Amino acid sequence: MEELERKSTAEARRAEKFPIVLILENIRSAYNVGSAFRTADAFQVEAIYLTGYTAFPPHKEIRKTALGAEDSVVWRHFPDAGTAIERARSAGYKILAVEQTTESQALQSLHPTPEQKIALVFGNEVTGIESETLLLADACLEIPQGGMKHSLNVATALGIAVWECVRSYIKEKPILK
Amino acid sequence: MEELERKSTAEARRAEKFPIVLILENIRSAYNVGSAFRTADAFQVEAIYLTGYTAFPPHKEIRKTALGAEDSVVWRHFPDAGTAIERARSAGYKILAVEQTTESQALQSLHPTPEQKIALVFGNEVTGIESETLLLADACLEIPQGGMKHSLNVATALGIAVWECVRSYIKEKPILK
Repeated sequence: MEELERKSTAEARRAEKFPIVLILENIRSAYNVGSAFRTADAFQVEAIYLTGYTAFPPHKEIRKTALGAEDSVVWRHFPDAGTAIERARSAGYKILAVEQTTESQALQSLHPTPEQKIALVFGNEVTGIESETLLLADACLEIPQGGMKHSLNVATALGIAVWECVRSYIKEKPILK
Repeated sequence: MEELERKSTAEARRAEKFPIVLILENIRSAYNVGSAFRTADAFQVEAIYLTGYTAFPPHKEIRKTALGAEDSVVWRHFPDAGTAIERARSAGYKILAVEQTTESQALQSLHPTPEQKIALVFGNEVTGIESETLLLADACLEIPQGGMKHSLNVATALGIAVWECVRSYIKEKPILK
């Protein structure tokens, strides 16, 4: 594992990041929040904004799935998604809601460059992103899917959406190995 | 949700599939297995092969995260990954181990076409794929990552690897919407 050049918590916090902010709205399961931290650590994401009733650290169940990533990833708690979106927008982030709507754009058509800052919004496991929050987004992104449920676990969807940005960013900014 | 055209369990089983088989070796958490079923359902994957001490249906914890996808996705249990790999290989699948090794190829360099059948192998959450199983693979695939842990949750990694195949397949075979 030494060959992987793992970073210490302090080194990971200081490491160069991709311009991605994750906004989690009313995520019911603290395990999903922990998994989001782990994904954010692995993909060197700028920050996680935890909003509404989403659990935030210190939290036993987050720790159990984040495995320490809640210390290496920058996070902030906001009372609601609207405030978090306002904050991200004023810092130059494009607000993209990951939600299946009639207006959604397919995830793979995004192709962001490292100059494009992106805030990805994810909603509750059952009810999705609140409709008033959707109205605040610049666009909706959809992961093409079928099957019986038409529904990925939120932590899986988050991993896929972040990877889609990262796979595009690393063509110009290869900070991962 | 009606607009999503969700399928019944029987319709989902009959629906056209992508030529992907998932081989899970010694997955400790039944929740991760359940999540794999849900991903396999959403992305219309051919089958899941559960091997070694990986839990298999019927199982309470699998049901809790699979949300019924264990009925819509074809699965089979094998005593060990080697037997499952042999079976997939004889059916024309290329065996790709998702593991960080010195020989790994970056995930995004894969670009499969719908004529290429792919079996993706995933290993234990802590120890990864067994070394004797790695020797049976045609190649190793690596999801570029950094951070403190250099490690995604296995259910997240599985979602990302399947999406990478699906995003390539759907260019020629747009069976998802």
